[in-house]
Amino acid sequence: MITTDTLVSFFLETREHTENICKPLEIEDYVVQPIIDVSPPKWHLGHTTWFFEEFILKPHKKGYQLFHEDFAFVFNSYYENVGKRVIRNDRGNLSRPGVAKVYDYRQYVTNEMKDFLSEEISKELEEILLIGIHHEKQHQELLITDIKYIFGNNPLLPKYNDLFSENLSQNFQQEWIDMKEGIYEIGHTNSDEFCYDNELGRHKVYLQNYKISSKLITNAEYLEFINAGGYKDFNLWHAEGWDWVKQNDIAMPMYWHNIDEEWHQYTLKGLQKINLEAPLSHISYYEAFAFAQWKNCRLPTEFEWEAAQQFFEWGSRWEWTESAYLPYPGYTKAPGAIGEYNGKFMVNQKVLRGGSVATSPKHTRPTYRNFFQTNLRWQFTGLRLAK
Amino acid sequence: MITTDTLVSFFLETREHTENICKPLEIEDYVVQPIIDVSPPKWHLGHTTWFFEEFILKPHKKGYQLFHEDFAFVFNSYYENVGKRVIRNDRGNLSRPGVAKVYDYRQYVTNEMKDFLSEEISKELEEILLIGIHHEKQHQELLITDIKYIFGNNPLLPKYNDLFSENLSQNFQQEWIDMKEGIYEIGHTNSDEFCYDNELGRHKVYLQNYKISSKLITNAEYLEFINAGGYKDFNLWHAEGWDWVKQNDIAMPMYWHNIDEEWHQYTLKGLQKINLEAPLSHISYYEAFAFAQWKNCRLPTEFEWEAAQQFFEWGSRWEWTESAYLPYPGYTKAPGAIGEYNGKFMVNQKVLRGGSVATSPKHTRPTYRNFFQTNLRWQFTGLRLAK
Amino acid sequence: MITTDTLVSFFLETREHTENICKPLEIEDYVVQPIIDVSPPKWHLGHTTWFFEEFILKPHKKGYQLFHEDFAFVFNSYYENVGKRVIRNDRGNLSRPGVAKVYDYRQYVTNEMKDFLSEEISKELEEILLIGIHHEKQHQELLITDIKYIFGNNPLLPKYNDLFSENLSQNFQQEWIDMKEGIYEIGHTNSDEFCYDNELGRHKVYLQNYKISSKLITNAEYLEFINAGGYKDFNLWHAEGWDWVKQNDIAMPMYWHNIDEEWHQYTLKGLQKINLEAPLSHISYYEAFAFAQWKNCRLPTEFEWEAAQQFFEWGSRWEWTESAYLPYPGYTKAPGAIGEYNGKFMVNQKVLRGGSVATSPKHTRPTYRNFFQTNLRWQFTGLRLAK
Amino acid sequence: MITTDTLVSFFLETREHTENICKPLEIEDYVVQPIIDVSPPKWHLGHTTWFFEEFILKPHKKGYQLFHEDFAFVFNSYYENVGKRVIRNDRGNLSRPGVAKVYDYRQYVTNEMKDFLSEEISKELEEILLIGIHHEKQHQELLITDIKYIFGNNPLLPKYNDLFSENLSQNFQQEWIDMKEGIYEIGHTNSDEFCYDNELGRHKVYLQNYKISSKLITNAEYLEFINAGGYKDFNLWHAEGWDWVKQNDIAMPMYWHNIDEEWHQYTLKGLQKINLEAPLSHISYYEAFAFAQWKNCRLPTEFEWEAAQQFFEWGSRWEWTESAYLPYPGYTKAPGAIGEYNGKFMVNQKVLRGGSVATSPKHTRPTYRNFFQTNLRWQFTGLRLAK
Repeated sequence: MITTDTLVSFFLETREHTENICKPLEIEDYVVQPIIDVSPPKWHLGHTTWFFEEFILKPHKKGYQLFHEDFAFVFNSYYENVGKRVIRNDRGNLSRPGVAKVYDYRQYVTNEMKDFLSEEISKELEEILLIGIHHEKQHQELLITDIKYIFGNNPLLPKYNDLFSENLSQNFQQEWIDMKEGIYEIGHTNSDEFCYDNELGRHKVYLQNYKISSKLITNAEYLEFINAGGYKDFNLWHAEGWDWVKQNDIAMPMYWHNIDEEWHQYTLKGLQKINLEAPLSHISYYEAFAFAQWKNCRLPTEFEWEAAQQFFEWGSRWEWTESAYLPYPGYTKAPGAIGEYNGKFMVNQKVLRGGSVATSPKHTRPTYRNFFQTNLRWQFTGLRLAK
Repeated sequence: MITTDTLVSFFLETREHTENICKPLEIEDYVVQPIIDVSPPKWHLGHTTWFFEEFILKPHKKGYQLFHEDFAFVFNSYYENVGKRVIRNDRGNLSRPGVAKVYDYRQYVTNEMKDFLSEEISKELEEILLIGIHHEKQHQELLITDIKYIFGNNPLLPKYNDLFSENLSQNFQQEWIDMKEGIYEIGHTNSDEFCYDNELGRHKVYLQNYKISSKLITNAEYLEFINAGGYKDFNLWHAEGWDWVKQNDIAMPMYWHNIDEEWHQYTLKGLQKINLEAPLSHISYYEAFAFAQWKNCRLPTEFEWEAAQQFFEWGSRWEWTESAYLPYPGYTKAPGAIGEYNGKFMVNQKVLRGGSVATSPKHTRPTYRNFFQTNLRWQFTGLRLAK
Repeated sequence: MITTDTLVSFFLETREHTENICKPLEIEDYVVQPIIDVSPPKWHLGHTTWFFEEFILKPHKKGYQLFHEDFAFVFNSYYENVGKRVIRNDRGNLSRPGVAKVYDYRQYVTNEMKDFLSEEISKELEEILLIGIHHEKQHQELLITDIKYIFGNNPLLPKYNDLFSENLSQNFQQEWIDMKEGIYEIGHTNSDEFCYDNELGRHKVYLQNYKISSKLITNAEYLEFINAGGYKDFNLWHAEGWDWVKQNDIAMPMYWHNIDEEWHQYTLKGLQKINLEAPLSHISYYEAFAFAQWKNCRLPTEFEWEAAQQFFEWGSRWEWTESAYLPYPGYTKAPGAIGEYNGKFMVNQKVLRGGSVATSPKHTRPTYRNFFQTNLRWQFTGLRLAK
Repeated sequence: MITTDTLVSFFLETREHTENICKPLEIEDYVVQPIIDVSPPKWHLGHTTWFFEEFILKPHKKGYQLFHEDFAFVFNSYYENVGKRVIRNDRGNLSRPGVAKVYDYRQYVTNEMKDFLSEEISKELEEILLIGIHHEKQHQELLITDIKYIFGNNPLLPKYNDLFSENLSQNFQQEWIDMKEGIYEIGHTNSDEFCYDNELGRHKVYLQNYKISSKLITNAEYLEFINAGGYKDFNLWHAEGWDWVKQNDIAMPMYWHNIDEEWHQYTLKGLQKINLEAPLSHISYYEAFAFAQWKNCRLPTEFEWEAAQQFFEWGSRWEWTESAYLPYPGYTKAPGAIGEYNGKFMVNQKVLRGGSVATSPKHTRPTYRNFFQTNLRWQFTGLRLAK
């Protein structure tokens, strides 16, 4: 049972952390949306704020005055139940509200929430509050990866700061962990600890004998794949993966640059020579699959990953799995707008497990299910082999 | 063990059946390709023939003369290992080779095969021959559904013939079949009976308690969904399903027409009043899912379907399942072109189980895994509920 | 004044000539539409017939029975005033009505017209009849160029026949014809001879001194442009022409093939070595302009062409001019559907003057204004320099 | 002959005026590019600066140090001769260089230019300088119209300032000015006054009798067209204009809003009730043409406009003409990058004559030829009738 004080601190810390992430930005950096998957930082700041206003303050705080009546339109993301919204690929076309105004909005809502939380709240509201906090934590990760995209695709290649280490070394020998055939329990136990609805419904699955690697694939290993012509051999690829390679002239992970015959990668610290020992990052599912084919291995399913995760280190890369993103047995989505959080995306996406250097503290766990379309690469996505 | 005589008969029957399907066509009907998923009938005739030429006669028959050296280019479908090919959406742009020439090609290859099969063949070749026969049976089904599309989207709505019954009634009461939690075996047992590589690797899965309907959803039931505003309530749909509905103005199954307030459907016998008791057909996965949501049910997984299939009638509709099309444990694709048959499509598609009124005799079985993208509707696709 | 007998003969000859053009075709060749600009031959046969039915028989012949009530829908081209129609890029998706049926339709309408023309008709009707005949002659040219496209883009490169000579030699020395500054009269004199409304309004224009070539550019001259890198030097091109070159990988005229280092061109007689002395053909306006730039010359305006045309030979190629397709002073379009013939296309197209080897007899004249979008190449388009 | 002092003042005034236009902007407003035709204000600031650096300082000033070596890549617009550049629709994806940096760049180049101009310069350089100044004036107009687009398509509809009057009334009676048939001289006389190369080549044209209106079409007149169903009658439109209307759901000029049955328009002063007497603005060529058709009139040609312009007031709207944008007789483009200024756009655009409330002082004249694609509406485009 969480005390209200703990909740308030958690809320305030989270709000502050979001703003800290944006500290190194100049005002211009808050505005742009170079691709549809990347939202402008000021939109993240406003959207995470709108969530608290829309689902807590507006329906539950007596006499609450909206900060601005048009902000729901501007900062709603995809909640069809909540009315019209700016279409997603127009977010980068809006110069107003300006950054200062968005910070005012944040301050206003944070204060109103503080005031609101000074009194006891119901169990139901506490749950929505926790969703709001974790929702903001998810956007903290997106903020970092979106900022990386904004900088990493600018011809001047500005750096974010000098501190953000994205390429942790894995100083240990690779091993194959042996997992025995049998029944395993999968999913969150629904204890007091927070989790999303898509993790619930702990249930049994039957797994066959399998081996899973103790180590993520490194840049050095992936370079071998490139040098062996991996991007040119259609036998390694799914048919639609091969089309994706051809249509987009893909020949290396996102952010890699071959400059004067030397491999570099753009990182949040700026352009650097490639770190061969660091875990590979910024690949699509298609690339992860093709690499595994080339190695005569495969990607683990999300169930194999979860069953074995206690035996290896994880958390620096989101790891592509072979599993499609589907509901667990007995999954039911919540009624209304909150129900739009997860369920409606359960088609044509792949599950990723783990977490990444951009994931906020206390925001991942062994049962956490992240998910993306198979072509996306702007997250810190990597891969671990199974066989 | 199949005797060679049986094999030869099987081969010849299959070849003849393909040609029988085309009997009602006029020459013009063989040529067109109204959408990319629908191939011109003459292309099917040539492509199924090319398969035997390319994988059996050319490499294995001594002194075999190609019928025409450009036909591999014209009639290859997607086998990247076999060289260049006409791009898929250009098939309907080719008036030559003409229909008579394609029939000559068929005759030539059938005769050469008969000659070739008059002597013993190796086990390996027998397997390729069986794949070729079953490949042609798959194209027989596609021929029927493609012809339906060609006629059903022509403003004159010509009929195919007067005999093809696509709307079999289900004269029995709907019941919920109770299935108990536990371990089930899934996949083909790899006995002598033919199956595709994607069915192999019989393995255990753990299923929770579930109920599955004994009956397919009927047109009458789907009409209730339409009348209740099912196509207008985004809460029932996946996010990308909803986009699909909006962008394509979808408001009813394919081939349905509301004429003067009365519901009709185009069938291979021509335009008819809707048969309310017949099983629903020509819906996308998105529609199947939304309907199930509206009923507070869900679609079965392919494992649930296979475990329960002995308890209900099936075979008139391909049934959408909730399962993504993924490899079974231990799946490995064959080397070379034959290996391109199944494995490279195992991403972003859904499994369908059952069979349809258009499926050729001896061409489906309880372990058969069909698969399509989630938006496709030109097959005889229906749905069965689970919960 | 044309006598009725002359008119009837003219009508019947024209109808017959259309059918003669199609004699070498197989049934399949009548059906396909490989690009939106190319219509299926059976559509041309039906559409030219529909024109007489829609604008003469239906409104003016007592007791006329439509051949088929859906044919107006199938064979209308762009006449918005006449109701709905099959959208243009769906023409190649229609296998029905079949070719035999379309010939029945032609026969029926031709007979009904013969019957109708056995009695005197009004001056107004005579004008519409003449438009109908010339409309069919225009489609005769399109039939030939569309058939060339259908065959020339088929991997088997079938020939149309052995007689059609498209590459007439120009056995004479190139000369620069000097034209003096001053006032010239442009446009049709509106005598009894037939012309389109876009030629009418004979009017004065003031031309500066100019020179115009007596000879069309030959394949040999164009080859020099290719060899000099003309397709790689953006300075020669319009900005949108350069985009067109880049996006479509254009490096030579349509129908040219470089086979084993030797230049060939597909002609209606099949694939042949390039005829260096023949006039260049199948180029876009962009290419014509770039070539002229490279020669330090320019294209003539349509006025310069018309004023000088008596001094040079023309008629084997449609010649791109620098003139945009605009109304002549005093141009007014006819009321109703006939008014849609020309006026509504007078934007973003270029005027071509001359005629081509595919133009029907009696169908061009010094004042004739043909027009196409700047990127189109499937007509027999060539170029003549001015300076 | 311009004195150097005059030139320097002209240069400095122009530079300052650009910056004054941006005074009301917040930093965020400098960054966005909501459609491809609208560039971010900071891009305009940088691009006009780059022009002087690239064409004057870099080649001609001894020891000149580039401000930043990547800025040519960022701020080049379309000059293929000057190397690679950011593709046009990526301009709004660049947060860096930031606004302050761009102002530093301006200051640096302005100072270097001042220094450079303290000594005599050659006639050739003076010409390039004048082009640079007028180039910047053109961008001043674009700045205003782009800012209007950025604000006018923001859901908050912010205003630019309270002073910018775009809707000047025309307090006089409409009259038809009679112009007599005959020879007129068109084009710039190439005196000392600056003009662009596309105005040069003063030459004779022959005009027929015509009448031209003394007054621009007002909002009130255009409202009649809307109310009479002008947007629904395809007979009034070009074929491609009608497609444009249908595909984009066009039913009114850009920036018009029908709010609670009352017509409003977004102006640089914010949203206002429509000013019925003000000249119509923000229409495409297609709309101008359709309106003229509806009035049984037509648009003037650019020659008719130029010949008559001394008899009417003009300058508040750019006026669409019927003339395609084509070279004048004898037009030759300058060698190298400067030659890319005008000539390469001379295809598929229409000429506009006049000027607008956004046109900078001393930047238009009777021979000035502006040009845009037929569908564009974000400039202050209006129309004047002829017949």
